[in-house]
Amino acid sequence: MQIRQAEKNDFDAIWPIFSSIVKLGTTYAYARDTSKEEAYRLWMGLPEKTFVAEIDGNVVGTYYIKTNQAGPGSHVCNCGYMVAANARGKGIANALCEHSQIIAKEMGYLAMQFNLVVSTNEVAIKIWLKQGFDIVGRLPGAFDHAEYGLVDALVMFKTLN
Amino acid sequence: MQIRQAEKNDFDAIWPIFSSIVKLGTTYAYARDTSKEEAYRLWMGLPEKTFVAEIDGNVVGTYYIKTNQAGPGSHVCNCGYMVAANARGKGIANALCEHSQIIAKEMGYLAMQFNLVVSTNEVAIKIWLKQGFDIVGRLPGAFDHAEYGLVDALVMFKTLN
Repeated sequence: MQIRQAEKNDFDAIWPIFSSIVKLGTTYAYARDTSKEEAYRLWMGLPEKTFVAEIDGNVVGTYYIKTNQAGPGSHVCNCGYMVAANARGKGIANALCEHSQIIAKEMGYLAMQFNLVVSTNEVAIKIWLKQGFDIVGRLPGAFDHAEYGLVDALVMFKTLN
Repeated sequence: MQIRQAEKNDFDAIWPIFSSIVKLGTTYAYARDTSKEEAYRLWMGLPEKTFVAEIDGNVVGTYYIKTNQAGPGSHVCNCGYMVAANARGKGIANALCEHSQIIAKEMGYLAMQFNLVVSTNEVAIKIWLKQGFDIVGRLPGAFDHAEYGLVDALVMFKTLN
């Protein structure tokens, strides 16, 4: 697996991953019917940088990194990760998260924050905990899960050394 | 005191309040040198609605209300409040917060979240607790305070009935 910075035309390979995940309404606080244009803005336009993971030349995962808050909050970054459904269980999310922490430090960030980790997304929570993130907050009923209705969301945080 | 929705030209009265607070670098995660144009975008452009509190025709406080997260997170709103330095201790922040909860319910929001309450801002925290908000998270060193350096920030949350 190779992780490299995404170029504009990589979005055609990112989009099927993004749309299939967001459509489910179970893990991301993006509108389930987010358009391809809006998805580009969210995943590649607003963030500072976007990366893709490739296996045999195929994009199997992606993440973005951006500043989480402005001014006196700008030393904390935020990332979002997505892995193609047919490429799960291979440690790709883990590798992307590890990679993102190296990039974050290179960019001068002192910490990384996940603002809304859906509490029912146990696979993701397990990975972030393994990656050294702490659960620092719990938002009651903050996520309207497509299957379970209102469920809690977690705030996760890691200080980078 | 009268609280009413802000019009575009109210921003000339909001700007001195905004800039003097943000310049201090002690309570808001906005760049300390935020320009008037950018401040307009942050306080009146991006939010759904902005309100002002007036006493004798003078703007003494202001708040905005916006959706905190998209899609499955869009039932939770976020507000920011500012009170002019010479009008503090009169219960204006309290009144603005109470008002914003009524507006939030009218707009269909089910909860309100403050993403970054600086832990050293004891006056604000006391008011939000009194208004029924809970401290649901603590972000270690997430705010670079102009005087104290890195201090914790709190996440506060209230489910609206």
